[in-house]
Amino acid sequence: MTTRADSHINGDGLTVDQRLDALAAISDTPVGLTRLYLGPAHRRATTCVADWMQHAGMDVRLDSTGNVVGRYAGTMPEARTLILASHIDTVANAGRFDGNLGVVAAIEVVRRLHDAGRHLPFAIEVVAFGDEEGVRFASALGGSRALAGRFDPAILEERDGEGISRREALIAFGCDPTAIASEARDPATTLGYVELHIEQGPVLEREDLPLAVVTAINGANRGRVTVTGESGHAGTVPMPIRRDALAASAEMMLAVERLGRSAPDLVATVGRLDINHAAPNTVPGRVSFTLDVRAPDDAVRAEAVAAIGREILVIAAARGVSASVEIGYEAPAAQCDDGLQQRLAASMARLGLPERRMPSGAGHDAMAFAGRIPFAMLFVRCRGGISHNPAEYAAPDDIEAGVRVLADFIDHFAI
Amino acid sequence: MTTRADSHINGDGLTVDQRLDALAAISDTPVGLTRLYLGPAHRRATTCVADWMQHAGMDVRLDSTGNVVGRYAGTMPEARTLILASHIDTVANAGRFDGNLGVVAAIEVVRRLHDAGRHLPFAIEVVAFGDEEGVRFASALGGSRALAGRFDPAILEERDGEGISRREALIAFGCDPTAIASEARDPATTLGYVELHIEQGPVLEREDLPLAVVTAINGANRGRVTVTGESGHAGTVPMPIRRDALAASAEMMLAVERLGRSAPDLVATVGRLDINHAAPNTVPGRVSFTLDVRAPDDAVRAEAVAAIGREILVIAAARGVSASVEIGYEAPAAQCDDGLQQRLAASMARLGLPERRMPSGAGHDAMAFAGRIPFAMLFVRCRGGISHNPAEYAAPDDIEAGVRVLADFIDHFAI
Repeated sequence: MTTRADSHINGDGLTVDQRLDALAAISDTPVGLTRLYLGPAHRRATTCVADWMQHAGMDVRLDSTGNVVGRYAGTMPEARTLILASHIDTVANAGRFDGNLGVVAAIEVVRRLHDAGRHLPFAIEVVAFGDEEGVRFASALGGSRALAGRFDPAILEERDGEGISRREALIAFGCDPTAIASEARDPATTLGYVELHIEQGPVLEREDLPLAVVTAINGANRGRVTVTGESGHAGTVPMPIRRDALAASAEMMLAVERLGRSAPDLVATVGRLDINHAAPNTVPGRVSFTLDVRAPDDAVRAEAVAAIGREILVIAAARGVSASVEIGYEAPAAQCDDGLQQRLAASMARLGLPERRMPSGAGHDAMAFAGRIPFAMLFVRCRGGISHNPAEYAAPDDIEAGVRVLADFIDHFAI
Repeated sequence: MTTRADSHINGDGLTVDQRLDALAAISDTPVGLTRLYLGPAHRRATTCVADWMQHAGMDVRLDSTGNVVGRYAGTMPEARTLILASHIDTVANAGRFDGNLGVVAAIEVVRRLHDAGRHLPFAIEVVAFGDEEGVRFASALGGSRALAGRFDPAILEERDGEGISRREALIAFGCDPTAIASEARDPATTLGYVELHIEQGPVLEREDLPLAVVTAINGANRGRVTVTGESGHAGTVPMPIRRDALAASAEMMLAVERLGRSAPDLVATVGRLDINHAAPNTVPGRVSFTLDVRAPDDAVRAEAVAAIGREILVIAAARGVSASVEIGYEAPAAQCDDGLQQRLAASMARLGLPERRMPSGAGHDAMAFAGRIPFAMLFVRCRGGISHNPAEYAAPDDIEAGVRVLADFIDHFAI
């Protein structure tokens, strides 16, 4: 029997898989997994994660944005710090691996050190962020931005769907919003930030690879295109005089696709399309659709967005419709640190895993640290590229490979 | 002052415009015009129209499908009958000209005969149909089909949104559903059917013409295309391996447009498009869209529908998505009678109006008579091609031109 008395040897005896199960059961909903920032399930998850961290030998605190921070001391009191982190908030009807896996893997790496009775010349901070998905409030990455020293106090006024402000929710959670600025980590004493995460895409599965080192988190633009032609009766308006907003949009969407294919690692997507007063027997007079353009290289992305805008206007002019292109959101690409990438790749090589590097098309807490603290990410293969869905799945062998790479990385991490 | 005593001279003294105003005020809704079959506004409209018919010298009855039938006797008791008709039911939030204008114009033509104290060697029946739009029950043209002898008794079981059957609604309206078969007109004693209607399209306005003779009511297919690809994260699925159902649909919609342009008077429309679980950051995995294909020539339409189906499957195969094309509705084209067309054109010529013939892209009561009783239609220019909308408008001069053509047509109608 494992007892509390020998918990410094084997912690609480839970496997990575059991921890993922335990977190998956902590939901705001009776069925499925939905765990919103500063909600009741998030509260229970912080308690659970804090307990695991303590059993793994860490000093634990809830910080002023609701992050759980566990510190595994270095061999010297003045040791610098390496951060291993991911998030424990989820989207609605989420999978169990997105975010949670990175937190559980980081705890597991420290638990193995602790079980072996080892401390390293640097401290390890395991952080479970709570605000990655940006579901409850308008903005996202509040927790990671606080550590990166770029938390914007203005977002404390954001209100959720029930009118509760971010500030009120933090106070109700037991956090002190006036202390957020003090959470900023000092780049001089912070060695880096490493996050393990499922890929959330299909590339590793297609290539039959368990892991990849992330090169950059893609920059992104989001926008909206509105096309205005002329509505009419589908039977009575002859084809030559139509100004069909949907047919024009179809041509524009093909241009978006073609331009999205014009450079490696560039992607361009139309995910929503709305027809004003749509009816089967009505020629659409007004259509709007979304744009999502991402690339690891900001110049490539900017050129693609500009080309899409130009093509849309050319198509509109040729068809006698009007089009407006609004780019409403822009995030620059965040480059992963070359040195950290190289160290992760070396660990993979030592463990006999083939090297694969790829950009991340999705956003992550890691990108909050861009330009402040060197960061890197390790991707774990997931089934079918499915994420943000109960069908999300990563195989135990791939997860174990990821934990081992992270453990090896830490073992070989020179200060 | 006009009094009831001299009503045989100038009827009730209302102009066409005043009658359109009066009907426009009879709505099921406090604001706007909505007059559904066998509803309270339809009830009031039948009373109003019946009153006008009586003032114009007609014998009036409500028939067993709720049509108002006014008979203006011929010079001989055994005279054959010419039908002038349109409908007084409307869509929701309708314009005031669709249907109503044809009824008011027919009454006006008879009123002018009556005011002049003239009777013709044939009788004229003015009919105000009540079930053209097919809004309340699943099927349409119940009233005109009864006169054409092709009323399907099975539709008496159709129920409206409140669960009331067509049969129950007819009985509540004072109609005898068991007598519907007896409404069928005898082709041997029926000279023809002529309907004046707004164009509901933009062609006459573009060509600066007030009127056109209709050549045929287009045949139509409606269908639905469902495209199934693979959903994915807009950031993480590389372009080369995407199976984007919306991009595939865009290419298919351009094929629909191109094939719709492949023959004169053919039209092909995608009016609705729905994306399953649409989100700006999700590659669409499943899309469905509607098809509406119409032509005055059934062979042309059939070939276009077949070509659209073939193209869609070719595009789907090339993109690795699946597509299904379901054609759920088919109505053959209804050809207008050559002799009646020629007589209408001759009347236009006598009145100094340029000849224009065109097919009707919209359906009308007239098409119920195809193959049974010769029919023709006269289109009146409307503003912007707008119909089924409060902005629907036809100019008084164009309406008067239509009334005069109809009156001249009747004057010259040889038996």
